[in-house]
Amino acid sequence: MTKKINVGIKGAAGYTGGETLRLLLNHPHVDVTFLESRSQSGKPVTSVHTDLVGETDLTFSTDFNKPIDVLFLCLSHGESKNLLAKAHFPSTTRIIDLGNDFRLGDTASGREFVYGLPELQRDKIKTAKNIANPGCFATTIQLGLLPLAKAGLLKEVHTTGITGSTGAGQKLQETTHFSWRANNISAYKALTHQHLGEINQTLKSLQPTFSEDVNFIPWRGDFARGIFVTSILESNLSLEEANELYKEFYASHPFTHVSDEIIDLKQVVNTNKCLIHLEKVGKKLVIHSITDNLLKGASGQAIQNMNLMWV
Amino acid sequence: MTKKINVGIKGAAGYTGGETLRLLLNHPHVDVTFLESRSQSGKPVTSVHTDLVGETDLTFSTDFNKPIDVLFLCLSHGESKNLLAKAHFPSTTRIIDLGNDFRLGDTASGREFVYGLPELQRDKIKTAKNIANPGCFATTIQLGLLPLAKAGLLKEVHTTGITGSTGAGQKLQETTHFSWRANNISAYKALTHQHLGEINQTLKSLQPTFSEDVNFIPWRGDFARGIFVTSILESNLSLEEANELYKEFYASHPFTHVSDEIIDLKQVVNTNKCLIHLEKVGKKLVIHSITDNLLKGASGQAIQNMNLMWV
Amino acid sequence: MTKKINVGIKGAAGYTGGETLRLLLNHPHVDVTFLESRSQSGKPVTSVHTDLVGETDLTFSTDFNKPIDVLFLCLSHGESKNLLAKAHFPSTTRIIDLGNDFRLGDTASGREFVYGLPELQRDKIKTAKNIANPGCFATTIQLGLLPLAKAGLLKEVHTTGITGSTGAGQKLQETTHFSWRANNISAYKALTHQHLGEINQTLKSLQPTFSEDVNFIPWRGDFARGIFVTSILESNLSLEEANELYKEFYASHPFTHVSDEIIDLKQVVNTNKCLIHLEKVGKKLVIHSITDNLLKGASGQAIQNMNLMWV
Amino acid sequence: MTKKINVGIKGAAGYTGGETLRLLLNHPHVDVTFLESRSQSGKPVTSVHTDLVGETDLTFSTDFNKPIDVLFLCLSHGESKNLLAKAHFPSTTRIIDLGNDFRLGDTASGREFVYGLPELQRDKIKTAKNIANPGCFATTIQLGLLPLAKAGLLKEVHTTGITGSTGAGQKLQETTHFSWRANNISAYKALTHQHLGEINQTLKSLQPTFSEDVNFIPWRGDFARGIFVTSILESNLSLEEANELYKEFYASHPFTHVSDEIIDLKQVVNTNKCLIHLEKVGKKLVIHSITDNLLKGASGQAIQNMNLMWV
Repeated sequence: MTKKINVGIKGAAGYTGGETLRLLLNHPHVDVTFLESRSQSGKPVTSVHTDLVGETDLTFSTDFNKPIDVLFLCLSHGESKNLLAKAHFPSTTRIIDLGNDFRLGDTASGREFVYGLPELQRDKIKTAKNIANPGCFATTIQLGLLPLAKAGLLKEVHTTGITGSTGAGQKLQETTHFSWRANNISAYKALTHQHLGEINQTLKSLQPTFSEDVNFIPWRGDFARGIFVTSILESNLSLEEANELYKEFYASHPFTHVSDEIIDLKQVVNTNKCLIHLEKVGKKLVIHSITDNLLKGASGQAIQNMNLMWV
Repeated sequence: MTKKINVGIKGAAGYTGGETLRLLLNHPHVDVTFLESRSQSGKPVTSVHTDLVGETDLTFSTDFNKPIDVLFLCLSHGESKNLLAKAHFPSTTRIIDLGNDFRLGDTASGREFVYGLPELQRDKIKTAKNIANPGCFATTIQLGLLPLAKAGLLKEVHTTGITGSTGAGQKLQETTHFSWRANNISAYKALTHQHLGEINQTLKSLQPTFSEDVNFIPWRGDFARGIFVTSILESNLSLEEANELYKEFYASHPFTHVSDEIIDLKQVVNTNKCLIHLEKVGKKLVIHSITDNLLKGASGQAIQNMNLMWV
Repeated sequence: MTKKINVGIKGAAGYTGGETLRLLLNHPHVDVTFLESRSQSGKPVTSVHTDLVGETDLTFSTDFNKPIDVLFLCLSHGESKNLLAKAHFPSTTRIIDLGNDFRLGDTASGREFVYGLPELQRDKIKTAKNIANPGCFATTIQLGLLPLAKAGLLKEVHTTGITGSTGAGQKLQETTHFSWRANNISAYKALTHQHLGEINQTLKSLQPTFSEDVNFIPWRGDFARGIFVTSILESNLSLEEANELYKEFYASHPFTHVSDEIIDLKQVVNTNKCLIHLEKVGKKLVIHSITDNLLKGASGQAIQNMNLMWV
Repeated sequence: MTKKINVGIKGAAGYTGGETLRLLLNHPHVDVTFLESRSQSGKPVTSVHTDLVGETDLTFSTDFNKPIDVLFLCLSHGESKNLLAKAHFPSTTRIIDLGNDFRLGDTASGREFVYGLPELQRDKIKTAKNIANPGCFATTIQLGLLPLAKAGLLKEVHTTGITGSTGAGQKLQETTHFSWRANNISAYKALTHQHLGEINQTLKSLQPTFSEDVNFIPWRGDFARGIFVTSILESNLSLEEANELYKEFYASHPFTHVSDEIIDLKQVVNTNKCLIHLEKVGKKLVIHSITDNLLKGASGQAIQNMNLMWV
């Protein structure tokens, strides 16, 4: 590949913006054209993403109407749709939206978005014009269930997931105040988490008869990065059959691995991997799946999608 | 009360031994007669329980055959039964076993043990000669389910619980190595945790027809103290009915409270409390329950039981 | 003591207010008359200090003009002086100010304040009308140096101290955002920390010839509670002489102990203790001192001062 | 570069072995020939370095006598010297020792070692046959002092440093037990840390008249990775002069940066960077320097040295 991919980030001062930038700066085939941020315009990016000191002299700007190949939208939920309703980008600019505006089939300015979970639909991503990047919990839960849904074996699922504080973003909140969150655990949005929409959409696309619930309990963890999920459901598969099903499903996917050994969250933190471990006890199949919420759960998967579009 | 209660601890150098001692030293009606430890005999207790510096001059000894009113057994699982098979204590000495040897009805040297969960059977505890103190996960899970079982409303339950590292004791292990456990989450003993025995025993005693599973997934947390549990089951109760049921059940129990507000683990750490919070979504009842694993889950409940026996 | 001490807290919704309340609720000789908070008036205190659920039915109010024996001021720095310039309290009401307004000899409405470090001047505290409660770093550093200053042996000191996040209070700030502070260390106010004023005032009162610097580097720690300080200076004392000096100095002080063993922060967290450990290497004396910033460094010491006034 | 560098690691199952391997697997010009470990021989490396699942199929072996270009010694202190006294490696094999056996000029089997601090002596490293890789605290402290020593401006220094638990290695110890270390701070080896030897050797090589002490107090931190150091000394330099001195010194060194903004540890964790920030208060110059103890303080610097030898 000789010509570089020119990219821009809108909303570059937040956590997913910074993480996307960190990956792009180290990408051998990418040139970063602009880093848009209303709140930080004019400042060096290293004043916000201080871990990048020594790696870049770029500054934030409010200008984002430069010709680029890929635009990453790292905005609050709802803002991407507003932006596309107002701003007009050349049809040759591909958009990767890290928010949740287009994950359920919505369009804007005639742009259609492909749901960017490579393990679900890599071929569609390769030819997509626009990508709706999956949510972090949604990615981790789906990767734990895709092979079963594909095989039509999904039943009612009970899922608990715990997430790092970076999932709540950069905004100061009581639930991200250090004195409160350190050594603390809490539950939120029990059975009503917004990612259930995209999870159910995927599962029903693979197993149209699936009409049961994914009963999802999210917890806030006392750590900064990572998601640990355990799902449990009834299954007639033996452990061997389940492992075979999963390993075959993920054989060609470089970032998702089925581990015969028990897994722990730090195996995937700071990587784009998803690890899965299965257990069978009586009639119940237990599925543990883990990711880094900012990488495979956000920015890493966004770059993975970009790479797939440019292969 | 004029005469002090004379107490001894066997296995006083471990975490539950130290926590029990800390409470006893501050108990207005207790004299500590001996602190037995094979490994630390002859050493000041402050050399092991260093947080007690300035509070006691006691030393560990191997002698535990002094006349006392209450003997706390803070031993590894299995050791209490071995001890009682060999050593003979006066029948006037009451025994509170913090291990799991006598929770399922086993006896030793003719001693019968009452399961020491005050919210389940306070009156039996008051007249008990010997107490089998409940396990930490078992306490937290049961307190979340007792009112339903008492009302005969229990159905299949899905429970996830996360525990602090002190639950694994003082012994150096890979899963309690700081570099591994910091910022890490992992699952263990999925659906097979040893506390399921005492949990099911209790639930079936209250609701004899209950034959479903308590599907319990334990997680290791990256914090030192506390247990957070979320249980979920189908229920026809409205949220109001459920809250009324729980509040009535716990009205006379000073350490267990039903909170109308969401709860977080640190509310109970370093206390003997259990807090419970209920949610209802569709047909599902969600029950969050939290304790400090070393207090309400072990030493605190042991002292609570002693207090009940001496009222 | 038959008659209860009637107390009130102004600024009861913050961290030191809550910690003071927690101690007062468990104090056998105290009745809490009011809990003033502008921001939380009308709400139950358990809605803010959620760890007190089940322990109190008190609510916050804006009224603080009720007759009381002791008023605890738990306000932002500067607010106590403003308050006393406007509000008039009966001369029989003793005031304990946890802020830094009166530590350096300032007065308000004719009220003089005694600097409330019991290990420095217990007798003055016993007869004081008003107390200026010391700062958290100031307490920990001074307790490490008092015996040397008393003996006239102080020379230039180099001190590094690390503090838990609760020292920065309840207000949401970038440096107390969990995603930033977890696993992070940073320095601030190098050589210019505001506690140096009260530290130098004390040291010079004991050793008037002391004109060297206490070179104090404060660090922010990635934990919620506690202060660890190491001070180093040249000394002709042998280790034995130094230990003798320190142990004699603190012999009658129940909360400050000189440990022959190395110390670690968690020995004092959740207690009102200060532990000190000395080392001698070549000509240098090394002094480690530790406290809980919210207890011996704030609310605990405030209650200690109240107790001394009422003995 | 067409021909790959063939490398082997002896002691590949420990923390520095694993971290070195992780970097080598992602190095575009390296082939890993063997991974020696006595304790783990025959096992897949992913069973020990579980974060590498999906990245390598290599197994540990006891064989390390294969022809290679670079041998990394990731052994306990003292073992490298023992090894070289017994085993004979071709003179064409360059050795990078991550232990402390050869940092002070010792030789073995006629091999001389160049102290591998690139910011001190990059040119010597480029032509070295063998490298003694600096210690983690030694690296961080020296990088904070090199420009002053080079300019002959060093005076007595007071240094405090805090380190992550990975600095203590993989071995289970009481001071790395999670229940002890979480939220805890402690001091150790005050003024006697073993890295003072290499620190003083470097400083005196640059400023031969320097005969004062580097008074170094090491602390154990409650985090896994990183070192934060603050050094303080008298200086006649203004802040501007000091910054100019430091920036000029490090201008050509890609991993060490002088920041005009305050710095915090997480800026460098998971990178090979050292960041430095200067402050001037009165006559005192304050120097903060930070690294990741496993990268710039160990494995990262080892790879940096290898790269310099192969440029």
